[in-house]
Amino acid sequence: MKVSFTLGELSERLDVPLRAPSPDVEINGLATLESAREGQLAFVSNPKYIRQLAGCNASAVIIHPDLAEATELPCLLSTSPYVTFARASQLFAELRDSQRQLGVPHVHQTAVVSLDAVVGTQVTIGPHAVVEAGAIIGDGCRIGAGCYIGSGVHVGSDSVLYPNVTLYHDVKIGERAILHSGVVIGADGFGFAFDKATMRSVKIAQLGAVRIGDDVEIGASSTVDRGALDDTVIGNGVKIDNQVQIGHNCVVGDHTVICGCSALAGSTRIGRYCVIGGGVGITGHLSIVDGVTVSAMSMVSQSIERPGVYSSGTLLQESTQWKRNVVSLGKLSELTRTVRNIERRLQQGSSPESGKTYDERGRD
Amino acid sequence: MKVSFTLGELSERLDVPLRAPSPDVEINGLATLESAREGQLAFVSNPKYIRQLAGCNASAVIIHPDLAEATELPCLLSTSPYVTFARASQLFAELRDSQRQLGVPHVHQTAVVSLDAVVGTQVTIGPHAVVEAGAIIGDGCRIGAGCYIGSGVHVGSDSVLYPNVTLYHDVKIGERAILHSGVVIGADGFGFAFDKATMRSVKIAQLGAVRIGDDVEIGASSTVDRGALDDTVIGNGVKIDNQVQIGHNCVVGDHTVICGCSALAGSTRIGRYCVIGGGVGITGHLSIVDGVTVSAMSMVSQSIERPGVYSSGTLLQESTQWKRNVVSLGKLSELTRTVRNIERRLQQGSSPESGKTYDERGRD
Amino acid sequence: MKVSFTLGELSERLDVPLRAPSPDVEINGLATLESAREGQLAFVSNPKYIRQLAGCNASAVIIHPDLAEATELPCLLSTSPYVTFARASQLFAELRDSQRQLGVPHVHQTAVVSLDAVVGTQVTIGPHAVVEAGAIIGDGCRIGAGCYIGSGVHVGSDSVLYPNVTLYHDVKIGERAILHSGVVIGADGFGFAFDKATMRSVKIAQLGAVRIGDDVEIGASSTVDRGALDDTVIGNGVKIDNQVQIGHNCVVGDHTVICGCSALAGSTRIGRYCVIGGGVGITGHLSIVDGVTVSAMSMVSQSIERPGVYSSGTLLQESTQWKRNVVSLGKLSELTRTVRNIERRLQQGSSPESGKTYDERGRD
Repeated sequence: MKVSFTLGELSERLDVPLRAPSPDVEINGLATLESAREGQLAFVSNPKYIRQLAGCNASAVIIHPDLAEATELPCLLSTSPYVTFARASQLFAELRDSQRQLGVPHVHQTAVVSLDAVVGTQVTIGPHAVVEAGAIIGDGCRIGAGCYIGSGVHVGSDSVLYPNVTLYHDVKIGERAILHSGVVIGADGFGFAFDKATMRSVKIAQLGAVRIGDDVEIGASSTVDRGALDDTVIGNGVKIDNQVQIGHNCVVGDHTVICGCSALAGSTRIGRYCVIGGGVGITGHLSIVDGVTVSAMSMVSQSIERPGVYSSGTLLQESTQWKRNVVSLGKLSELTRTVRNIERRLQQGSSPESGKTYDERGRD
Repeated sequence: MKVSFTLGELSERLDVPLRAPSPDVEINGLATLESAREGQLAFVSNPKYIRQLAGCNASAVIIHPDLAEATELPCLLSTSPYVTFARASQLFAELRDSQRQLGVPHVHQTAVVSLDAVVGTQVTIGPHAVVEAGAIIGDGCRIGAGCYIGSGVHVGSDSVLYPNVTLYHDVKIGERAILHSGVVIGADGFGFAFDKATMRSVKIAQLGAVRIGDDVEIGASSTVDRGALDDTVIGNGVKIDNQVQIGHNCVVGDHTVICGCSALAGSTRIGRYCVIGGGVGITGHLSIVDGVTVSAMSMVSQSIERPGVYSSGTLLQESTQWKRNVVSLGKLSELTRTVRNIERRLQQGSSPESGKTYDERGRD
Repeated sequence: MKVSFTLGELSERLDVPLRAPSPDVEINGLATLESAREGQLAFVSNPKYIRQLAGCNASAVIIHPDLAEATELPCLLSTSPYVTFARASQLFAELRDSQRQLGVPHVHQTAVVSLDAVVGTQVTIGPHAVVEAGAIIGDGCRIGAGCYIGSGVHVGSDSVLYPNVTLYHDVKIGERAILHSGVVIGADGFGFAFDKATMRSVKIAQLGAVRIGDDVEIGASSTVDRGALDDTVIGNGVKIDNQVQIGHNCVVGDHTVICGCSALAGSTRIGRYCVIGGGVGITGHLSIVDGVTVSAMSMVSQSIERPGVYSSGTLLQESTQWKRNVVSLGKLSELTRTVRNIERRLQQGSSPESGKTYDERGRD
């Protein structure tokens, strides 16, 4: 059983030049510069860690050609060391999977697959998974134990659903998706009409679906609701972390990244290549342009029309000090008015020709 | 197979008058004014969208009688167009379900249903669902694949549990509930006594249960914990969005709406007809009266005694500007003191009879 | 069937002295002072509730010896009444479980347990659970219905997994764990290298695992991600509430408590005996010392180097007032500068020897 790669193999498969006395050194894993042992491959993604190369016990290192002279270790030379490290991590994950003997693709005997579903070739369906009528599972998919694939769902080829993922009816998932356990796609969006006659909320049935592009990863226990009339849409290459909530009829642009525990209320449109930090809340019916970064735990309650970095919230303080400041914050508009009054008095004192009254100034 | 309703049928089933040349026009779906095509029914819920009626391609529109002269389209006349739209959405959802041939109610052969459970008539139990001893499933319920119904659970009639819902022992669910995938009801509340002798947290077993009223909907991956001694209680008509957390011994009043990702810590009581925005956090042991609205991402750390709209948090800014402001916020109580001092000096200057010292003023 | 304990039994099993006319009084449950009925045991954990003893209908009370003279009820005397109450709650939970006849430990016939898994003695595995090759389930464990135990997972003895828990491959769980429904341990950490050449995110395969200590409880739908290279580590005695997210490579110290809906971004280290309130967000790569308390909904974006209580966020206000204040907050650094200018002018006025210019002061 294969348990390692030679440096030569890595150089070839990662498509980066090797600078080493021999291409035959065996590499059996990845590690940080600090913790690497013999047989492991480390990486320098940031010049500021270059000093750590001195005591590094790795058998080789991924490094930018311009920095390679800083070490005598065997080097895989990459102009994007972090990207090369990412690709190497995938090689070692494949190696690990082959060791775990996931076995030949097959449908487990306890899975319940409708005769009216279409299952591609080289598909694995785990124990107790359910695939309803009209579902289409593309070639090479792996559907984990206990997953539920509703009627009319399409899952694109080479997608991986970890155990206990739930896809409601008519959800469309692109190719090479990775959906982690606990993910729920296509539950009803949250829509009600309040009936004043009966003082009751009347459910708006959610008649749209969810369309998810290619190369999307969605983290554990994240939820994407189906649309009310039109679909909720997630673009290609979007990466969503754990416990993220995407409301109905949102549109998330290609290659946008959404970190853990963030939430998009309904009908919000986010552009391409945005980065939404963790714990961010975005209210409904907003529009955010391409290339916007929102820092962690911010609240977005207005549309964002220019690319840039945005934040809200307050900084952590010792609680006693924090309390004094937030109590003051509760009177801040008053304080601002007081300061304006003082300023005006001082200006009147020094320049008596200033005849504006406070009220006029207040409307500036 | 039925794939549409005539306008006449819709008028009758929605109980609203029809103004149209013919009641026989076939309607096969709902859409917005903007996107509606022939054969679809649109709606005007807000007079400000009335201009969109001009170019609308819908075959009919739900509209308030007072606005109906603005269009020559066939009209379903409703004094609550949005509520009528909601009811229409439910009709089309039924139509879609009948097309999907959910089949006659039955217990799937792979479901594990205790002989000591009581299952009503017209009940569907999906593949791999589990119903433990002492559970009671009311008439007309649909229990999705992979659901777990613990011992002693009651589920009221005509309730729908989507796949992979978990109900712990002794949970009571009212009639017509809708529980989405990933919902967990009745997990242990978070209670520990810290034992200083051993420096360990000692678990407080959660001996209460959860009682949920009629007509409650709970969104995907939301959690409602069981009570410590008494029960956690959710009133009738409560609507809970995705990823909401309700702590042990909370009481949520009838017809209150809780948006996504909000959290109630333990033993908090919320009144009737409240609206809790998304991402709101409410600390424990508080009491909130009827008719309170809390805006998205607010933190509620004190009881609310008057109906109204409440908020906390700060507005989004470009990060550089935000940073300057929050650093200033960290010194705000100091700034407030400085301004008071200035004010006092100026008052003493202009009105020397003001003999208050700073300390006295500080206590105002 | 046993349905109660005598006071004598409770005294013995809780290891606290009894002060009562007779040890034979039957106790069938626990309750608060306020709601207790005959046959129930109440407790006084805080002297301020001592007045409620007057009207209390309990048959006995757990109380500190120093307060016992305040009542004539039979007393279980404990110097830590709340801890004794916690232990009593566990006794009554055992009683309830024995009434529910959980039955003799067994592997349900619908469970799919690999022949290459090792299952200890006295283990219960529920319907439709899956245990993969190489997994080790310790003695006395209870694995709920629909749980997924990945390959190479170890679950320590006497652990309880409620239904629908998912453990990815190679996760290690200590002894006496309690994992609630919807928990996902070992999903991929959120790591990507952005490749500017292709403008795509390249997945960093997550090659580490998760190690969880003994006596850990994790609430419903919480998620703990596997490490990128090294493991994510949760210490002994850690208690985690519902819907908490722990990012890859975090290290949580022993006996730390994390309340609901909090999130730790990647590679953050939290000390021992910390208390993280609900809805707290902690950004990545931080370090928090032992004994830190963070109040609910705070954002932690810098390391914390001293024990203490910390907060961020703002207080709830009526929305109209809140809006005025946060608009002012958006100009706070400007206001601060204005006040400094005024102060300077006033100081120059009264003490003309002050020759500092504004710019110099601005850099103080």
